[in-house]
Amino acid sequence: MKPYSRVLLVTGSGSVKKFGIYDEVVKELEGIEIFELSGVKPNPTLDSVYQGIEICRKNNVEFILALGGGSVIDAAKAIAAGVVYQGDVWELFLDNSKFTGALNTGCILTIAATGSESNKNSIITNELTKEKLGLRRDELKPQFAILDPKYTYTLPEKQTAAGIADTMAHAFEQYFSPTKDSYLTDRMAESVMKTCIKFGPVLLNEPENYEARAEIMWASNIALNGILSCGKDTDWASHMIAHELSANYDLTHGIALAILFPNWMEQVFDETRKWKFEEYTVNVWGLSASEAKTSIIKTREFFNSLNLPDTLTKVSIDGQYFEQFAENVVRRGRTGSFKNLTKKDIISIYRRSL
Amino acid sequence: MKPYSRVLLVTGSGSVKKFGIYDEVVKELEGIEIFELSGVKPNPTLDSVYQGIEICRKNNVEFILALGGGSVIDAAKAIAAGVVYQGDVWELFLDNSKFTGALNTGCILTIAATGSESNKNSIITNELTKEKLGLRRDELKPQFAILDPKYTYTLPEKQTAAGIADTMAHAFEQYFSPTKDSYLTDRMAESVMKTCIKFGPVLLNEPENYEARAEIMWASNIALNGILSCGKDTDWASHMIAHELSANYDLTHGIALAILFPNWMEQVFDETRKWKFEEYTVNVWGLSASEAKTSIIKTREFFNSLNLPDTLTKVSIDGQYFEQFAENVVRRGRTGSFKNLTKKDIISIYRRSL
Repeated sequence: MKPYSRVLLVTGSGSVKKFGIYDEVVKELEGIEIFELSGVKPNPTLDSVYQGIEICRKNNVEFILALGGGSVIDAAKAIAAGVVYQGDVWELFLDNSKFTGALNTGCILTIAATGSESNKNSIITNELTKEKLGLRRDELKPQFAILDPKYTYTLPEKQTAAGIADTMAHAFEQYFSPTKDSYLTDRMAESVMKTCIKFGPVLLNEPENYEARAEIMWASNIALNGILSCGKDTDWASHMIAHELSANYDLTHGIALAILFPNWMEQVFDETRKWKFEEYTVNVWGLSASEAKTSIIKTREFFNSLNLPDTLTKVSIDGQYFEQFAENVVRRGRTGSFKNLTKKDIISIYRRSL
Repeated sequence: MKPYSRVLLVTGSGSVKKFGIYDEVVKELEGIEIFELSGVKPNPTLDSVYQGIEICRKNNVEFILALGGGSVIDAAKAIAAGVVYQGDVWELFLDNSKFTGALNTGCILTIAATGSESNKNSIITNELTKEKLGLRRDELKPQFAILDPKYTYTLPEKQTAAGIADTMAHAFEQYFSPTKDSYLTDRMAESVMKTCIKFGPVLLNEPENYEARAEIMWASNIALNGILSCGKDTDWASHMIAHELSANYDLTHGIALAILFPNWMEQVFDETRKWKFEEYTVNVWGLSASEAKTSIIKTREFFNSLNLPDTLTKVSIDGQYFEQFAENVVRRGRTGSFKNLTKKDIISIYRRSL
C-alpha cells in the first residue's frame, strides 16, 4: 500500500475520545494530515455521509480510517464510494450497479457486531425517505482491520449485548438455508453460535474479561466476513424485517433482531424445514433431534440471557404500521430463501413479536 | 488491480494439459502475452525457481499465475520474490528478513492440500544442500485464488489422499497447542477435521463426487489460510520432522505426515497434555473424555481409511539417518510448542513410525 498523507478519521458518539482510544490512534498517525468526521450515529444516516464526502473533496483526502463499530465503518465505506461517484451518493444505494469506485478504507474496531470491518457491505439510513438500504461492492472491503478486544472493554452492556445478538443473527441467516450440502460451512456457523452462547452472558458480569471479549470479537468477524456463506443460499429476511423497525424507530439493530429472530423461527418451522432445526438442535444445543422445536425456546432463552428486551411492546413499538412495513419489505423483491416470506408471513412475525 | 499484459504461467506435471484445464485457462487469458514454466515437481525444487526467475527477467513478466497444487503455487511465490531480489533467491529462504518485495501472483487450484493459495508461505527444496525451507511474507499472499472442485476430479487417488492427510495435519498442528483460550478457533479446527473424516474416504470410491470434492477443497483452504491459528501458539514440529524425509527421499509430503502424526501423538501424550486430547476425543470423535488415548487409534484408522501407507518401512525408509534428521530439525531452533521436542523425542517419533 502506498503511504497516504491525507486521511479522514471517522468516529461515532465520542466514547473513543472519552476512553483514550482516539488519542492512541492519533498518536500512531503522526506525520499524516488528519481530517475528521465525528458524531456518526447508530444506524448511520445519509447526512453524515454527505458531510464526510464534502470534507474529503474539499481536502483531497486519500484514505478513510474508521474508528468505531459497524455504523462508523458503514459510513466510512459510503463516504469512500460517494467521493468517487459524480452524482448523489444515495443513487448508489438505490442501484448498486451505478458504483464507480471508492477510496481505500481501514478500520479500528471498537464494537464487535456487524463484521463490517471485513466485508463489502455498507448500510445507510435515509431519514428523509425512511429507507435503510445497502451498497455491496468488493471494492468497499477495508484494506485492513485492527481488532483489539481491549478496545471493547468500555462498551455499555446494552451495546455489548446488541452486538452479540447481531452476530448470532448473522450466523442464523446463513445457516438456515435451503442448501443441504454445506457441511464445513455449517459446522463453522455452529461454532460461532456456540461461542456467542458460551461467552455472551459472561460479558454482562465481566465486561473486562479479555478471553470473552476476544471470542465475541472473533465470532462477530467470522459471522460476516463471507466464510459462513461459502457455497450457500442465504436468507436475510430477518434483517430486512428488522431494518424497517430501525429505519422508523430509534431501535438498536441488534435488539430488533433479538426480538424478531425467535418469532421468525416459529413462523418458518414446519415439516419441510424441520431438518435444519434438527441439525441446529443437536449440534448447537446438544439436544436430540426429536426436540427440534425446543431449540426455538433455547434461542429465546439465549437472547434473554443477554438481558435484551424480548418483545416489541417493551421497546414501545405497537402494531399500527406493521402492514406498511411488511409491504415495504416485499416490495424490494424476494424475502428469504429458507422460506420465501409472504406479506402475511411478515405481518405474522411482527405480531408474534409484540 | 491494473491489467497485466505479460504473465508467467506456472504448471506442474502436465496433468492440467491432459485434462483440458490448461486449455480453458489459456483461452481466458486471450490478449495477454503468456510465458510458461512447466514441470514443477512435488516438493518444488530451487532449479524450477531459478528457471522461472530467468524467464520473468528476460521477458519483463508482470504477474505470475500458478495453475496447479501447492507445489506449483509455492514455486510461483518463490519466483515472484526472486525476480525482485537482487541476490540469489535461496538467501531469502535462509533469512526471510532479506525479502525485498515480490511480483503479484494468482492461483487456479487443482489439488486440495496445502492452503498455499490463500497464505503467505512458500516451501522450496534445495536438492544440492538437501534443505527444505520456507519463505513467509504477507506480500506473497496471492491476489486471488480460484477453487473449482471439478478441477480436482481427475486427481489420482494417492494424491487426493495425501492432500487430505496434509489438510488434517495442518488442522492438528494449530489445534494441539498450549493455548487454552481459543474456543472459536478450535471449534473451527474441529470442523475441518470432521470434514476430512466424513468426506475424505468418500473420494476414494467416488472421485467425481462434487460435494465431497468441494468440502475437501474448502477444508484444505480453511486449514491453512490463517484462521485456525488466530489467537494461538501453533506447533509445526510434525511438518519439520516430515520435511526432513521429503527432502531426502522421494516421499509425498502428505504421506509423510500421515505416517508420522499418530506417532507424534503417542510421543507427546502425557498427563500434562491429556486435556487437549480429551477435547479432540469428545468433539471430533464423539467419544467420552476418558477415552482420550483411543483418539490416537482413531487417528490411525482415519489415515488408513485413505489407503495411505502407515509405516516408513512400507515406503522403503529405514532408520539409518534418523539421528542426522533429528539433528537437522533441532538445529533450526525450538521444535514445537505443545511439546518442545528434544532430539531424543524426534528420533523416537521416527522409530515409532518404522
